[in-house]
Amino acid sequence: MKEIRAAKNNKIKELKKLQQRKYRSQSEVYLLEGFHLVEEAAKANAEIKEVYLDERGLQLWQEWVERCQLDYYLLSDEAMKAISELPTPQGIVALIKKVDAQPVDFSGKWLLLDNIQDPGNVGTIVRTADAAGFDGIFLGIGTADRYSGKVLRSMQGSQFHLPIFNGDLNETIPEFKKIHSKVYGTKVDETALSYTQVESSPSFALILGNEGQGVAEEILQMTDQNLYIPIYGAAESLNVGVAAGILMYALV
Amino acid sequence: MKEIRAAKNNKIKELKKLQQRKYRSQSEVYLLEGFHLVEEAAKANAEIKEVYLDERGLQLWQEWVERCQLDYYLLSDEAMKAISELPTPQGIVALIKKVDAQPVDFSGKWLLLDNIQDPGNVGTIVRTADAAGFDGIFLGIGTADRYSGKVLRSMQGSQFHLPIFNGDLNETIPEFKKIHSKVYGTKVDETALSYTQVESSPSFALILGNEGQGVAEEILQMTDQNLYIPIYGAAESLNVGVAAGILMYALV
Repeated sequence: MKEIRAAKNNKIKELKKLQQRKYRSQSEVYLLEGFHLVEEAAKANAEIKEVYLDERGLQLWQEWVERCQLDYYLLSDEAMKAISELPTPQGIVALIKKVDAQPVDFSGKWLLLDNIQDPGNVGTIVRTADAAGFDGIFLGIGTADRYSGKVLRSMQGSQFHLPIFNGDLNETIPEFKKIHSKVYGTKVDETALSYTQVESSPSFALILGNEGQGVAEEILQMTDQNLYIPIYGAAESLNVGVAAGILMYALV
Repeated sequence: MKEIRAAKNNKIKELKKLQQRKYRSQSEVYLLEGFHLVEEAAKANAEIKEVYLDERGLQLWQEWVERCQLDYYLLSDEAMKAISELPTPQGIVALIKKVDAQPVDFSGKWLLLDNIQDPGNVGTIVRTADAAGFDGIFLGIGTADRYSGKVLRSMQGSQFHLPIFNGDLNETIPEFKKIHSKVYGTKVDETALSYTQVESSPSFALILGNEGQGVAEEILQMTDQNLYIPIYGAAESLNVGVAAGILMYALV
């Protein structure tokens, strides 16, 4: 165990940079905050480079950290506040190595996100895809960064349970078509097919779109079928995370 | 049009108090922020007592406000910041009269929320219930206040589309049973019945519970049947807003 007291310490400054997407995208590591998520990382055999604890975190989790044979630092409250993204730090932050993208087999059930910008929505959707037993996810251009703190907190560790890729959906969709997987877009208007009329199949790709604009028109034109969720009441639309859940569970 | 420049103006101070639940619960009015929501209120013939605009809001919506024959105030940026709950105020806030609770007919499709604390979850669930064509909602004890800014923003105006009541679920559930409406609880474990095995019926009450603990045990013992959503992957659970959407759309 080493100790860091000053928030202006060089290591702390470097870690803090990982809160910004531009530094994160150049880096092979990301920060994960909160014991539950760090424990998920350990269970999934993710490579945990280092762990940072404050006094309270040390009392609660020193034994666990040592049992896992992890390198760890004791941080002053001030230093912890600098690297934490929460109003009240959780007492534990871990530095995790990103997983290298593996070659993709496009068979099975896949989710494709087109320009979904809210990190909470992206995280919740990944968590739901995990629960629904999906085989993997593509995050299209404009979609919130899966290594941002908010996405990580909403995912609840699901990044360790199913593969997630970044990709241009214009290039990804043809790959699904090559292996004859059905590609479903989603559309808010009723020119599309109601999701209740789709038969489930073992292999398909489902595309969800931006909170305001939905799936881009050029992408909708590449699909086999576009689906909608009927609105029986007076609401204009559904939250995209809720819509994703209804569709994913209906299709599996 | 009247003008208010100082954030310490008495009217502004009184309005600002409505950001707190304790003042709101004693009041017959609440604040609604953003043009889209204020427009929904007008469409629904809600009683809009007054409208507050900043310079930008005045430019955009003065004509609309006058056409609706609403009393309005021009606020300085400083005064608008005081009553807005957003990091960037939307330029328009309205003071709306709460709707008095009407006598309830318990028939049809109802949603009951037990101690759901996150305002975003409560708002999203109400919006989904609206979309799914539910007939009304009971907010049980411990559930986030439907007049809080965050709930209102997530509801997207659905409070104008279906009746919402506060109530003790211990007293509400027997009312549904009296008229032979089925009462469904929700439970995370598989001792319950999978929701896919429930036949839809025109009249029922569905109960959703707290983010961490689920529906309280004493309430689960009053139901006709408790339902669960199967987890096919490695996620531990679903977000309660997503779970609500899957269940509501499956039951209607």
